[in-house]
Amino acid sequence: MLRPGDTIGILGGGQLARMLCLAAAPLGLRCHVYAPEIDGPAFDVCAFRTVAGYDDEAALARFAASVAVVTYEFENVPAETAAFLAARVPVRPDPAALARTQDRLVEKTFVRDLGLDVPDFAAVDSVADLEAALARLGRPAVLKTRRFGYDGKGQAMIRETTDPADAWAAVGRHPAILEAFVPFVREVSVVAARAVDGSVAEFDLCENVHRDHILAETLLPAAVRPETARKALEAAAKIVTALDYVGVLAVEMFILEEEDGTERVLVNEIAPRVHNSGHWTIEGAVTSQFAQHVRAVAGWPLGSPERLGRIRMLNLVGAQADDWANIAADPRARLHLYGKGEARRGRKMGHVTYVEKD
Amino acid sequence: MLRPGDTIGILGGGQLARMLCLAAAPLGLRCHVYAPEIDGPAFDVCAFRTVAGYDDEAALARFAASVAVVTYEFENVPAETAAFLAARVPVRPDPAALARTQDRLVEKTFVRDLGLDVPDFAAVDSVADLEAALARLGRPAVLKTRRFGYDGKGQAMIRETTDPADAWAAVGRHPAILEAFVPFVREVSVVAARAVDGSVAEFDLCENVHRDHILAETLLPAAVRPETARKALEAAAKIVTALDYVGVLAVEMFILEEEDGTERVLVNEIAPRVHNSGHWTIEGAVTSQFAQHVRAVAGWPLGSPERLGRIRMLNLVGAQADDWANIAADPRARLHLYGKGEARRGRKMGHVTYVEKD
Repeated sequence: MLRPGDTIGILGGGQLARMLCLAAAPLGLRCHVYAPEIDGPAFDVCAFRTVAGYDDEAALARFAASVAVVTYEFENVPAETAAFLAARVPVRPDPAALARTQDRLVEKTFVRDLGLDVPDFAAVDSVADLEAALARLGRPAVLKTRRFGYDGKGQAMIRETTDPADAWAAVGRHPAILEAFVPFVREVSVVAARAVDGSVAEFDLCENVHRDHILAETLLPAAVRPETARKALEAAAKIVTALDYVGVLAVEMFILEEEDGTERVLVNEIAPRVHNSGHWTIEGAVTSQFAQHVRAVAGWPLGSPERLGRIRMLNLVGAQADDWANIAADPRARLHLYGKGEARRGRKMGHVTYVEKD
Repeated sequence: MLRPGDTIGILGGGQLARMLCLAAAPLGLRCHVYAPEIDGPAFDVCAFRTVAGYDDEAALARFAASVAVVTYEFENVPAETAAFLAARVPVRPDPAALARTQDRLVEKTFVRDLGLDVPDFAAVDSVADLEAALARLGRPAVLKTRRFGYDGKGQAMIRETTDPADAWAAVGRHPAILEAFVPFVREVSVVAARAVDGSVAEFDLCENVHRDHILAETLLPAAVRPETARKALEAAAKIVTALDYVGVLAVEMFILEEEDGTERVLVNEIAPRVHNSGHWTIEGAVTSQFAQHVRAVAGWPLGSPERLGRIRMLNLVGAQADDWANIAADPRARLHLYGKGEARRGRKMGHVTYVEKD
């Protein structure tokens, strides 16, 4: 159990690391941010900084020696980096959880083996594999690289007329997975936390709206039946426990509506980190996802995930952040800007949360 | 108006500066903390740091050149420091407001001249002055140094048997003020904010409980009549406007109960900064006092001060902070530790806030 004054090491210097730093401070914990980019937004709010590559073993060794625990803000931490650090200092969540979620094929197989529903899928390592998979799963379908995809990157939609060879080229001919197209009516997510002692706390089910493959809006409560929400929360609890996970993770899911009106839950993706669909918890829950993650990796008990009202969280993507002055002038808008320099297209620049009484 | 990415300079590196930094970051603003002590808790969460004395003109000049506005976390900023900076960069609140609140005699005269009630007082520059003042104001009475007092320091209670010469020695024979003893039934405070455009936003009236001259608890709503709360809020609005103030200040007041049951409001003290009795606003109001201060000094519009529930804020003073693990285990306790090393007696180490639905 970390004590006040101890230091948490964070791999990654983006907005998630920044919000972790802001949540660690009130608990009396310091943060040491390690990232290759000198202009990481997290560097503005941390006690200690290392700017170095994830393969710089001398820097990693110094970093490990300076902290009581290491965590990360992104799922693509190189396995070698995680292993190097884990030999020197506790790394939470465990690198084994990373390994299972860095590869879409491994992840989907793991989730299916837990008895949870996932979209039909097939491994694809060649155009021939892809043709065989399409014959089985039908069209439309989505081809995704097994590793290093996020915000729609490394994905290709295969429609009726798409040439499989083109799709295979579009994902760079990397090892991939074909997923059946799912005619979902809603995208939802569960942000769950698990403590060192195995206890689990989940925030309420979020409903998510994406635009251009990027999260645009999160709404709570999600417009699903109570038993559907219960099923989704149970699925996430099963996953976080089966991973022997310590920290916060998000499980993205699809909601399907059957002809008889019942709702089905399909697990789409696991993000082994704090998640954009949990940003509303900063003002909208008793404990934020960031404080919850800090508590978990510090070996502290979890806080209450109770929701405090009806929620609407809007991402400020690219030029949307140029509207900051108008948003700041709305006395009820809870504005968050990430301190990034350039509002490039598709770049997450901030978000704004509205909490209304239930 | 500051823009995201701009830097706010903060004089002082204590917990108030720390919480200002934590509130500035979500607005996309950086902080540069300037303080003489190398171990200031604010240094853990700021983008830029200067460790130097308040009389170090070279360091002050560099500091002024690096920031878009300067503010401070404590009222005892030397007048020369404030003037030196104000010649180079906007200082908010204006040093003139500081000057009026750094001297108890000047402050009390200013408040009385606004038509507000204050305890009877008299200037004391010698034992002879003190004896004359006691003859007029009666005993018990409180002798206070005019400058540099806080948390009960620089004060002496004069009871029936106290020798005036002893009391004069107890306050170090510094220029002082004698205040009539006020048989108050309650201590309250108003935390008010004023923007560059003159608009004012006030948090609800706080009820405060002191122990050993240090704030122990803040409770809301305060147990006073609605018209009493209204009067207190009006008094604070009058003060913040008359000072042409930009930022957050606190006005501490006494509530007296007359024989006919009516309540009287006496202004006790102005703190020209964010204030311990406003810490509850971090979770208990739509906008925290820290975010409100940052907005004001940045030239932004103010946020909503709406209160979100019934509030209890407990200070963790000295060894009380050793109980952090138990507090952290209460899922509804909102724990704040300030990152100070040693839990010295009387030192404010943290606080904890409880928000219950109204």
